[in-house]
Formats: sequence, structure tokens, C-alpha cells
Amino acid sequence: VHGPEGAARGRGRQAPLGVFDSGLGGLTVVRALRAACPREDIVYLGDSARVPYGTRSAETVLRYARASARALAARGVKALVVACNTVSAVALDALRAELDLPVSGVILPGARAATEVAGGAAIGVLATAGTIASGAYRRAVASLATRSEILGQAAPLLVALAEEGWLEGEVPTLVVRRYLEAFFEIRAGARVPRVGCVVLGCTHFPLFHALVEQELATLAARPIPVVDSARQTASEVRAFLEERGLANDAPERGSLRVLVTDRPQSFEAVAQRFLGEPLGEVEQVDL
Amino acid sequence: VHGPEGAARGRGRQAPLGVFDSGLGGLTVVRALRAACPREDIVYLGDSARVPYGTRSAETVLRYARASARALAARGVKALVVACNTVSAVALDALRAELDLPVSGVILPGARAATEVAGGAAIGVLATAGTIASGAYRRAVASLATRSEILGQAAPLLVALAEEGWLEGEVPTLVVRRYLEAFFEIRAGARVPRVGCVVLGCTHFPLFHALVEQELATLAARPIPVVDSARQTASEVRAFLEERGLANDAPERGSLRVLVTDRPQSFEAVAQRFLGEPLGEVEQVDL
Repeated sequence: VHGPEGAARGRGRQAPLGVFDSGLGGLTVVRALRAACPREDIVYLGDSARVPYGTRSAETVLRYARASARALAARGVKALVVACNTVSAVALDALRAELDLPVSGVILPGARAATEVAGGAAIGVLATAGTIASGAYRRAVASLATRSEILGQAAPLLVALAEEGWLEGEVPTLVVRRYLEAFFEIRAGARVPRVGCVVLGCTHFPLFHALVEQELATLAARPIPVVDSARQTASEVRAFLEERGLANDAPERGSLRVLVTDRPQSFEAVAQRFLGEPLGEVEQVDL
Repeated sequence: VHGPEGAARGRGRQAPLGVFDSGLGGLTVVRALRAACPREDIVYLGDSARVPYGTRSAETVLRYARASARALAARGVKALVVACNTVSAVALDALRAELDLPVSGVILPGARAATEVAGGAAIGVLATAGTIASGAYRRAVASLATRSEILGQAAPLLVALAEEGWLEGEVPTLVVRRYLEAFFEIRAGARVPRVGCVVLGCTHFPLFHALVEQELATLAARPIPVVDSARQTASEVRAFLEERGLANDAPERGSLRVLVTDRPQSFEAVAQRFLGEPLGEVEQVDL
């Protein structure tokens, strides 16, 4: 989290956190935030009318991200969490320069935790093809002054499985195993890990956290830690709010307000699966 | 195929066919066209910068479709094939009214073949959630003055599997089987088909034609025909061109020119998989 202290403090500790994503996947970050900072009020904005951002130009992504960020700023949020890998990869610096608010992305927190647990070995990243190709994890790891290598594996079927709600059983297990095999090599007839940890580098993938752990344990002789970037982001946001005196000290559990730009097919079911609790009130907005 | 005779004939039998889709999936229709009408030159336009259309409003889809149709008309095509279920569902009539060209979609040909082979039983449709929800197959079947019921099954994982290139083996087999189970019911302890045929109602699904046939045979006691809407569309286009004296009579195999509005990740590999032959020259265009 980076950003101006005064402005954010001016909004007060009772102000909500703003979280946005291109669609509904960012609700896994909201879920982690509600676990890590249960007293915070959250306003989530999902740009479901223009999902996915991953195939769009950096210019377009920045334009869309700016619209979401401004809509949340106008609702008086005290800090912004960009719960979208594509936006985190291409638009974070511009948003920070333009907004009078602290801004956190989802890539750096995961990269930071990964360098800590990888023990100098390479870092495996499961993400969308767009995130892998963007080199964002490589840049994030380099910015941490470590020399860890990144082994990226695009895992698009996990996105489709998450949206379809096929979270356990034969199909997701086989798919996860197939993707994880990229993080191993066969040496002298034995399967040897090429990575020291695996980062869940897509907002959809926390839904497969247990399955990834399980299949890693099946494939590897020794335990390989799994880094959940949603959880890491939430924990960095909590630390930041506490350091800056911005943590909400209300006695009750914080509220959640969900804004979307469109309500696609089976929107409620998918959103609830990512969020892990009932969705509550949803408002449709134009950006 | 519907449209003005004179205008199209004015362009001559040597003019190319124009085919467009929101992305690369429509190349399965091109593949079927090149099998059914091997002498035709084809110009394909994939609006890969704005894929997918399925989540956009009807208004936006029409606007995008209009831009693609005009770009192809400007290249002197003699007829248009809309190789996109979303556009076929919402924009076909408007395109026909506006363009001085015969226009074919992909829904009606599949629906027509299905009513013929279903033998009065219900018609199973595998498609995207958007196509199922649009009710386009229901309307198409009704327009044919038949009373066949439609049983739609959204199969989004097949789209992801096709794009990932996982076309055979355990995962696609399990996924296909799971989706096809929706077309059966258990009666007196036995699995009984609820449909007389299954339509592959998404441009990506011809890649799973053999697998769908195989799994239907495994599930059903009696054979259930599979209707490939790409192949049906190609066969209707061929009949139309012949009837109107518009079929190309050049001795050599027709050319293929591919236009795209963006070149996303692993574009060539995915495109070639749908097309079933090397891609040749690709041109990036702005709409």
C-alpha cells in the first residue's frame, strides 16, 4: 500500500475501504479482507459489463480502472484495493499518481510473501495467460531486490471451473494436477520440484487453495507452501490501516456494499461463491 | 441465407465470402465452409479485441456486428456468414435490413437440421450460457413451424478446453459426459434420453464432435445424432450459392484471408486449432 497520509486520514477511520475488479473474482479479496479486518466497511465495484480486462490494451485498462477508482473515491473511501491482476500489472502507478488515496494492488503482496517462503528457490505462479505474459510477477520480485526466478503457468481452466462452480471432484483435481506438473521435472527417474512455493496469482484461484495444496503434496516428496495473494493483500492492508491509525474501531462487523456495472448470467450464484457469504444488497451503476 | 439477389450477383461469383465472429471460434465455420465449398475465397474477420460479445448488451452487439459487416462489405464480399451465435441471436434481422447482401447466421441451420433428425423428440442444445439464455434456439425452432421442445445446457468449460487445446483425454471426456447427463433422466432405474438429438450450438464445439458422439453412445442405449451447426451452416451456404448462380467456379482451391482486431496470447495456435489448417497471412485491422 502506497499513498498520501493526510488525505486518507482526512477521510477518517470510519470511512469504507474501496475494492474494485473487472468482474466478480475480486470478491475473493473482499472475503479475505472481511476475515482480516472484520470491522471495516467495504464498497466493492465489479466492472462486470466490461470483463475481462486481460485481453484489452494497457491504455484501455487504465481508462477503465480510472473510472472505477473515481467512482469509489466519490463514495468517500479511505483507501483503494485494486483486486484485479490486470489493473495491478499495468495501472497501479498511474492511479497512485492521480488519486489522493492510498492504493494497494494484489501482485506485490503475493510476490513479497513468495520470496519469503521460497527460500531462494524459484517461485511458481498460477495465473491467467495475460498475467503471466505481462511479466508483472517478475517485475514485482525484482522490485523486492531478490533474485528469485519466476516459473509462470497459465491456468485458464481454473477460471472457467471457478465460474462454473466445479470446485472439487475428479475434473478440478485432474486440471489442478496437470497445471502443477509444470512446476516439476523428472530427474534420475524421480519427480523433483522446480519451485520453492506456488502463488495463487489470480483472484479466482483461492477457491482451489486446498486442492492445490493437496495435489502439491501428492506430487512432491516435501511440502511446498502455497501463497494466496488475496490473503496476503488483506494482511498488508490491515497492517497499513493499523500503522496509519486508519483502522475502523467500530464494535460491530463492517458492512459490505456491492456495485456492479452489469448483472450477467447467474451473477448472484457466482458472486456468492467467491465471497463465501450471502451477497446482500447489490446496486447497478454506470461508469 | 436471406438477401437481395441482384446486389450479390452484381458482385459476381468470383467475389469472396465474408465470415465474421467476435473472436477466433468462427474459424470452425470457415473450416466447414472450406470443406463444403472448397473453391470459394474467404475473408474472415475476428473481432478479437472485443471478444466476448456474449456478456454485452444487444445494442452493443449490434453496433460491433455492424462494424464488422461493413468492413467485409467494403472488401467486396458476395455474401456474409455471421459465424457468431451472439450476433446471430440478436442482430441478424438488422444486418439484413441494412446491408445490400445475403446474410446467413449459425443458429437457424443447426435448428433446421435438428428438427429433421430429432423425430419429434426434444432437441438438446450445448452452447454458452448467453446463447441458452437468449432463447435463440427456441425462437429458431418455432420459426420453422415445429413444436420441438429445446433442452439447453450451458457448457462454458468446453469453451475453455477448446481454447486451451485440451481436446481429448480424461478431462474433456469427463466434462463432456457431465454436461450430456443433463439430457438424460433416470426412469425405473434406467438412464433414458430426454432428447432426440444434440446440437453443438457454439462455434468452439465442433472440436468436440467425436467426443460428444462417443459419450452419447456410452450414455444412451440407442444412437442419438449430433448436429454440428458449423457444418449445417456451410451446407446451407453452399446450396444458396449454387441456387443463385453465385458459386465460384475457379478451378483451384479458394484462398483464405484472416483479419483480426487484436492478436491476443497464443493467437496463432488457437486459431489454427479451430481452422484445422495453417493460418496463412493474418492482417490486423481497426474497426
